[in-house]
Amino acid sequence: MTAVDTTPALDLGPARALSCRECGHQIPLAPEFACAECFGPLEVAYDFGSVTRADIESGPKSIWRYRRLLPVPPDVESHPNTDPGFTRLVKADRLAAALGVKSLWVKDDTGNPTHSFKDRVVAVALAAARKLGFKVLACPSTGNLANAVAAAAARAGWDSVVLIPSSLERAKILTSAVYDGSLIAVDGNYDDVNRLATELAAENEDWAFVNVNVRPYYAEGSKTLGYEVAEQLGWRLPGQVVIPVASGSQLTKVDKAFRELAILGLVEDTPYRVFGAQATGCSPVSAAYKADQDVVVPVKPNTIARSLAIGAPADGPYVLDTVRRTGGAVEDVTDEEVVEGIRLLARTEGIFAETAGGVTVATAKKLIETGQLDPDADTVLLITGDGLKTLDAVENHIGPKAVVPPNTAAVRAALDS
Amino acid sequence: MTAVDTTPALDLGPARALSCRECGHQIPLAPEFACAECFGPLEVAYDFGSVTRADIESGPKSIWRYRRLLPVPPDVESHPNTDPGFTRLVKADRLAAALGVKSLWVKDDTGNPTHSFKDRVVAVALAAARKLGFKVLACPSTGNLANAVAAAAARAGWDSVVLIPSSLERAKILTSAVYDGSLIAVDGNYDDVNRLATELAAENEDWAFVNVNVRPYYAEGSKTLGYEVAEQLGWRLPGQVVIPVASGSQLTKVDKAFRELAILGLVEDTPYRVFGAQATGCSPVSAAYKADQDVVVPVKPNTIARSLAIGAPADGPYVLDTVRRTGGAVEDVTDEEVVEGIRLLARTEGIFAETAGGVTVATAKKLIETGQLDPDADTVLLITGDGLKTLDAVENHIGPKAVVPPNTAAVRAALDS
Ligand SMILES: Cc1ncc(COP(=O)(O)O)c(C=O)c1O
Ligand SMILES: Cc1ncc(COP(=O)(O)O)c(C=O)c1O
Ligand SMILES: [Zn+2]
Ligand SMILES: [Zn+2]
Repeated sequence: MTAVDTTPALDLGPARALSCRECGHQIPLAPEFACAECFGPLEVAYDFGSVTRADIESGPKSIWRYRRLLPVPPDVESHPNTDPGFTRLVKADRLAAALGVKSLWVKDDTGNPTHSFKDRVVAVALAAARKLGFKVLACPSTGNLANAVAAAAARAGWDSVVLIPSSLERAKILTSAVYDGSLIAVDGNYDDVNRLATELAAENEDWAFVNVNVRPYYAEGSKTLGYEVAEQLGWRLPGQVVIPVASGSQLTKVDKAFRELAILGLVEDTPYRVFGAQATGCSPVSAAYKADQDVVVPVKPNTIARSLAIGAPADGPYVLDTVRRTGGAVEDVTDEEVVEGIRLLARTEGIFAETAGGVTVATAKKLIETGQLDPDADTVLLITGDGLKTLDAVENHIGPKAVVPPNTAAVRAALDS
Repeated sequence: MTAVDTTPALDLGPARALSCRECGHQIPLAPEFACAECFGPLEVAYDFGSVTRADIESGPKSIWRYRRLLPVPPDVESHPNTDPGFTRLVKADRLAAALGVKSLWVKDDTGNPTHSFKDRVVAVALAAARKLGFKVLACPSTGNLANAVAAAAARAGWDSVVLIPSSLERAKILTSAVYDGSLIAVDGNYDDVNRLATELAAENEDWAFVNVNVRPYYAEGSKTLGYEVAEQLGWRLPGQVVIPVASGSQLTKVDKAFRELAILGLVEDTPYRVFGAQATGCSPVSAAYKADQDVVVPVKPNTIARSLAIGAPADGPYVLDTVRRTGGAVEDVTDEEVVEGIRLLARTEGIFAETAGGVTVATAKKLIETGQLDPDADTVLLITGDGLKTLDAVENHIGPKAVVPPNTAAVRAALDS
């Protein structure tokens, strides 16, 4: 790849190198994603120096307040980007009561620019891609990532190439198309689209496929969820956190964020447990966890939680490492439980999540009922996407209480019935 | 109404009385909305004392940072509410270039909890309603307000009664129903529903219809848009602001906010011009403005901008007062221009607005083209609702660039075509 040659002085802030997660081999910062020695995944390695709470608190109300902990240049704010993050952490007392836990918080990432946590990873990918010499923002996606990439590219004035399976729901197609990049529908399933993206990345040196050839940078964006939770709790780590798992990247990065904060002395190094949440119809990591295996056996997804429907999760083994190291677990829930999870969160806290959020809430419920989650520990649920994007999941379950003629007696009768 | 009797010490912060906008008659703070002397609309009157920038800046990242300027109790943050606001103000350089103006900002209220500015007014209404002794949160609505009321009531643990026309789009019904309050579909149009709400308010003393019997408090919530714009510009007023007009409440309250900030010395008292935006298919205020009339003649709405489709706008005359006093104007745009406005904003800034946002952008464009907006003055556009809620408006206009088989040559051909 030649893109790196055009960027002699590669200042990505505290980032120093790419390091292989398997063999530890290091290479200079570059648009690479697989280790040349062992094909293991590359990860960003840092030299943070000293970072204080005051540094962060004086920053903008977006993920860029953590720029000293991310692979982005110091002037990241001066280039147009979607500037996501610093979404609300909601104290969820009514949901806590319903679930039977003492202290519960919901991290509500529906407040991001395109209403999912994907804005975080894409914003970091765009900032790094700009420095790495790329000119086009691209991705294979089933929805949330497509929205985030198309929107970020539009804002930056970049071309985008977004590849989706042609069978995608009309709503997800429209919300990707409106930003007017190159949206290409591919006749095939998500695995076909993903393979096509890898081939296109090899053929087009200046295309940054955020979750393929820029993946090491992109993935770091999920750390900001962990940073924000800790800061918003008053600079401390929660006792337990429940995180939805598709590729597994987000879960491992929230854990990485917690460890970094402790090492940097930004929070006290208190123990925490990380829990993964999957839909039973696509639960390869949960299955491996329950079978006490290290290997994640790929599955063919069949669940309404389409945003989590990755049958061969790249970071599955690292999810297993994380939950085992921290004393957590991975659990899975049926599609009926997912819908009930969406409705429970909406009814108790007024937050309308997509199916991935339903997975998180329902999994938390199951973990409590089975004694795996401690009801007395401070618990955080990550709600990573918006209910408006997955209306089909709930449409057969909810509706008006009644249809009445326009008179007060009819309304009264409907309410009393 | 007896609700006020149950709240002996009515501490709504700086609010001191309700004052008639027509005759100036004052009454104590109470759940009233029309003047007993002249039937004019009642408005909250305040005694602010001294408020500093530091007071505000040290507050929460929500509308409650302005609680010293709102009719809410000092402990407003200690009761569950949706805590909306402090949404991003986006410097929109690419949209500015497309429109031919020098300095442009977009206030992006799609980041609110239910993705419209209605969360602001409902949050204030809920906080006041709690103090006024109400027990149920209610509204007539065509969509955004229904979402906001149902969500806020759920979060607070209140019952809600939300009345909608039975003809509403399925998506808007679902996003209101999911919060599990009493959603009642009424056979009739919005005017029928509105009339029914007024009757129900009279019959049910403990129901707070946010936009009917609690309207004076509710309406004040829109001031926070003005406060935020000024604070986010670095404590100064913009030269021009373009605001969508349905009932006209929001426009008059943004103006009120600017004047309050200047009087309190929180910003310099610089001149600003307020512009109203309507869809031609429901443009009674624009028609009155253009005809140089003081009276707004009701119309029967026919536009895709349904959230703005109020044919008899309660605050229409006050909108005319405001734009004339400040040297602004009211303009209207066709449904085709609305769609182009949505697409222009998405394409240039990566922000997907609902039809009301399309009205604002398209109106700004027309105001510039007709020389009514000064291209050299700092300009702010209020984007008040989310594109995900009005997908039907764009669905015949956008889509994938191509549908291709899964090979790189086919993608390349599609991109080159
Ligand atoms: C809404 C939502 N939540 C969670 C995830 C899981 O992310 P990861 O692949 O990092 O496990 C996704 C992935 O697409 C998603 O769209
Ligand atoms: C998205 C949106 N913007 C603007 C408005 C206009 O508000 P007002 O009635 O205060 O003029 C509405 C009203 O429903 C709305 O839903
Ligand atoms: Zn290696
Ligand atoms: Zn009066």
